[in-house]
Amino acid sequence: MLDGTWYCDGWDPNLKILHRIRATLFEGASEYQRVQVLDTHEFGRLLVIDGLPQAAERDEGVYARAITWPPLLSRRGPTRVLVTGGGDGHVAREALRFPDVARVVVCDIDPLITRVTRELMPFLWGEAPGDRRLEVRHEDALAYLQGLPAASFDVVISDITDPSGEGSASHHLYSDDYVRRIKRVLAPGGVCVAQAQELSVKDASYHGRLRGLLGGAFAHARSAAVFIPSFGYPEGFVYASDDAAALSAPRAVVTARLHAAGLADDPWFDADVYAAMFALPPRLR
Amino acid sequence: MLDGTWYCDGWDPNLKILHRIRATLFEGASEYQRVQVLDTHEFGRLLVIDGLPQAAERDEGVYARAITWPPLLSRRGPTRVLVTGGGDGHVAREALRFPDVARVVVCDIDPLITRVTRELMPFLWGEAPGDRRLEVRHEDALAYLQGLPAASFDVVISDITDPSGEGSASHHLYSDDYVRRIKRVLAPGGVCVAQAQELSVKDASYHGRLRGLLGGAFAHARSAAVFIPSFGYPEGFVYASDDAAALSAPRAVVTARLHAAGLADDPWFDADVYAAMFALPPRLR
Amino acid sequence: MLDGTWYCDGWDPNLKILHRIRATLFEGASEYQRVQVLDTHEFGRLLVIDGLPQAAERDEGVYARAITWPPLLSRRGPTRVLVTGGGDGHVAREALRFPDVARVVVCDIDPLITRVTRELMPFLWGEAPGDRRLEVRHEDALAYLQGLPAASFDVVISDITDPSGEGSASHHLYSDDYVRRIKRVLAPGGVCVAQAQELSVKDASYHGRLRGLLGGAFAHARSAAVFIPSFGYPEGFVYASDDAAALSAPRAVVTARLHAAGLADDPWFDADVYAAMFALPPRLR
Amino acid sequence: MLDGTWYCDGWDPNLKILHRIRATLFEGASEYQRVQVLDTHEFGRLLVIDGLPQAAERDEGVYARAITWPPLLSRRGPTRVLVTGGGDGHVAREALRFPDVARVVVCDIDPLITRVTRELMPFLWGEAPGDRRLEVRHEDALAYLQGLPAASFDVVISDITDPSGEGSASHHLYSDDYVRRIKRVLAPGGVCVAQAQELSVKDASYHGRLRGLLGGAFAHARSAAVFIPSFGYPEGFVYASDDAAALSAPRAVVTARLHAAGLADDPWFDADVYAAMFALPPRLR
Repeated sequence: MLDGTWYCDGWDPNLKILHRIRATLFEGASEYQRVQVLDTHEFGRLLVIDGLPQAAERDEGVYARAITWPPLLSRRGPTRVLVTGGGDGHVAREALRFPDVARVVVCDIDPLITRVTRELMPFLWGEAPGDRRLEVRHEDALAYLQGLPAASFDVVISDITDPSGEGSASHHLYSDDYVRRIKRVLAPGGVCVAQAQELSVKDASYHGRLRGLLGGAFAHARSAAVFIPSFGYPEGFVYASDDAAALSAPRAVVTARLHAAGLADDPWFDADVYAAMFALPPRLR
Repeated sequence: MLDGTWYCDGWDPNLKILHRIRATLFEGASEYQRVQVLDTHEFGRLLVIDGLPQAAERDEGVYARAITWPPLLSRRGPTRVLVTGGGDGHVAREALRFPDVARVVVCDIDPLITRVTRELMPFLWGEAPGDRRLEVRHEDALAYLQGLPAASFDVVISDITDPSGEGSASHHLYSDDYVRRIKRVLAPGGVCVAQAQELSVKDASYHGRLRGLLGGAFAHARSAAVFIPSFGYPEGFVYASDDAAALSAPRAVVTARLHAAGLADDPWFDADVYAAMFALPPRLR
Repeated sequence: MLDGTWYCDGWDPNLKILHRIRATLFEGASEYQRVQVLDTHEFGRLLVIDGLPQAAERDEGVYARAITWPPLLSRRGPTRVLVTGGGDGHVAREALRFPDVARVVVCDIDPLITRVTRELMPFLWGEAPGDRRLEVRHEDALAYLQGLPAASFDVVISDITDPSGEGSASHHLYSDDYVRRIKRVLAPGGVCVAQAQELSVKDASYHGRLRGLLGGAFAHARSAAVFIPSFGYPEGFVYASDDAAALSAPRAVVTARLHAAGLADDPWFDADVYAAMFALPPRLR
Repeated sequence: MLDGTWYCDGWDPNLKILHRIRATLFEGASEYQRVQVLDTHEFGRLLVIDGLPQAAERDEGVYARAITWPPLLSRRGPTRVLVTGGGDGHVAREALRFPDVARVVVCDIDPLITRVTRELMPFLWGEAPGDRRLEVRHEDALAYLQGLPAASFDVVISDITDPSGEGSASHHLYSDDYVRRIKRVLAPGGVCVAQAQELSVKDASYHGRLRGLLGGAFAHARSAAVFIPSFGYPEGFVYASDDAAALSAPRAVVTARLHAAGLADDPWFDADVYAAMFALPPRLR
């Protein structure tokens, strides 16, 4: 039955996904974007920004692991992590699960995202708010990057919203300038990861553009994709570094590091899932 | 753009109306029915019961006048009005605008409707809650009718929900027994009005059944229809009485009584609108 | 169940009407507009132009009578009728039912409409194609009006599509120039009728603009509205003339002329329906 | 814009996927099921049975490879393949690409599927219709299996529709009896593959039941999942055999056999994709 209340995902003009909702828990706008928290039947609480789904209670852990774990599994020793965007907390939460992570800075321009998710979607944050290694800043990522000393981070995770529509808060970040500034603050051998939109048989065009941006700045770049049910498509990610080894850990190494980090029994991630993320169909590579 | 949040009216399985919503203000259930108050773009606040629209901020006055004013315009002198259902208040509100109305009893089984509309849709109630002539009871209409003395009311307005689905709180009311009990409590020459579902070129089947029920119990019955934008169709009403004059006031009489009641400048109702309500296409009469 | 195939009406961005469809019988485009003929569950075959419903098997007769009969009922003697737009045939069909009508010219720029409706919706045309009084032309209405002698028609019916979107074939017709050209070809006391979009509690803005255009050119103008189920709203019409009597026939006259024309037993139209069309709520007059 | 015509997938009552359609190319019903061929914007021509998407022009090759190639890659020498269901042809097409395949029998109860796809979706069949190794039968799979000699096939691919709703043509096939009959016609070491519905973080319940059916009959069973954009979810498959080696080919073997079969340059499948299909998140294994 269509009867009832629904949220319609704004992603694709020719393929519409309607989520049955139980309630609108929050609806508001900051100076940067419109923000909703919806209670959906299929995916629990869902954060929506400018009409697009960002994180759902039921499967946000799949996304958060995919963007966070691969770069952290490729290294050992004290690791400094910068998250641009990411004001909803779950990327920081995942990074802080790694004991070697010494510091996590989240730089998201919009304090509303943080306020709303801390209150209505606390599972996104988990134990992170009480963790002394975490710093959350609300300022423009470009400006913050500019002011940082060179080589101040080992991993930069770009978890910004999609640049759909001129009004998107992250529109200006999809540029060579943004990538160059990220590269400058990375220590040698550091890794940059970016959420990179749909990557599937049906659509890989946006992904290709972002892959090009990162591939132009770093010596090596790899694409991966993970199906996110609440998005309705496989989300793409680009991992880039000047050090090829930082982008590709052998199976035994991944397993050993998961054990060392106390993450060996995770329900959603292991060495096989890690390998499968990168096993794109030949045409999409 | 379909993007956003929507309420889908459950009325017609082959013609779906989606209302863009700004927020879900209330979503809950009593032991009788599911109740929602939605903030819609087109119609303002909308009361929804069991998935069907009941009253919208923008056009509820059209419905409330259509069901209330005709029987009150056909009579003079102290008038006692019983509303079965009607727990959302606007039928009572309209009845109380007539100075000749001496008493209005609303008998709606579900206190949740009254509580939610008093709080979130106070415009439905207007000045009624402070009016000493009003009594609101929450009990089964059949039982209440049974316990009343004969001839205790001059007008009975049946404003119950549609009997769609076995679970409807009003399902058992669509019966000969219900109509006979109403007739018993009406004084001689009294009028019974019933909201009577869609009445249009597209669908008049439910209306026909209800018209038959009332036509079997009273000597005279007339149908009327008024387009309610938030329903998406012309709502039908049946007015029945043993006194034909109570169902059909001449134009001059209507105008005179509107003046006498201080309702001559109403934006939605006058003698022409009154006549037009009853001017159904020949096939639908 | 939403499952299945649907047509979504493009009219209102905040209130979407979905029609369940059985099949797409035609989908194509002329140089002027996109044209579809859909087989819908609720309304039978439906003509859609540029995404908006134009005429449905089940209720087209209501629309066609409302735009055609009132001006023809107000006069006697040989009547020459010009229809601008109207390439789907049903306005011509209704005009030709009046024996006094001497001639009907349909001037619609788009031959595709005529071809598709003649083939797939022959009920729109009825007996009209074999009627010697009918002439169908496919050219721009503005140019055709320009070339006509003054006072060559008694009734002009503007049945053009809504001016939604720059691409609409009729966009340039909503102008003072168009109305002045119509007035010039009308004989003294002639009537101009225009379909004039939604006219309801919910929306009357477009109607108001068109009413203004006609009201500026003619001494008298009246608005009417008729609920068209397949549109989901009451369609507005404006009737304009320099002769007030041509816009308002008394009940007895209407009944007499329906009898004289052999239309006394029509299922959708009689003198009461005629009066009710004009009985708008005071606020909408 | 929602405006236009849409097909709404009937799969999930709480998550609705609407495909914009250009046209309905076929809509009909056999004695077994309703069948549509729709021309969609995103996926080209789409076969729909009983309201559910079956195969789309744009991504059918992903599904067809996933169900067909793994069992054929695990063996060498003359191979006899039985497809139950599969009347749309693409599983047979993929099987016939392997030179070692000696015979393919498709046994689908409904000749309408075959007729409609041969005419409107010939890409599903490719060169198969002219291949002498192919036999297409239209009879009940249960009865056909019953009448076969034991050990007459090496691979059985169950490509039947989902058992949603009592009316499904395949409902009676989801049973121990069906699986036992398949096992009886398999030669020693043979493989049975079954399409096994959604397998994702969001839903794995149906898949689990089918996995249980096959796991009860064979010594070994493995699950895999491949995202099918036109379904909107990862489709699950179960591969079962008494010979564990038939279910798991090492990377080098897969690559060697793809080369031997002339399939080394396929755009959608290689040894990495093969491995990734089986790399389910630990919780879903």
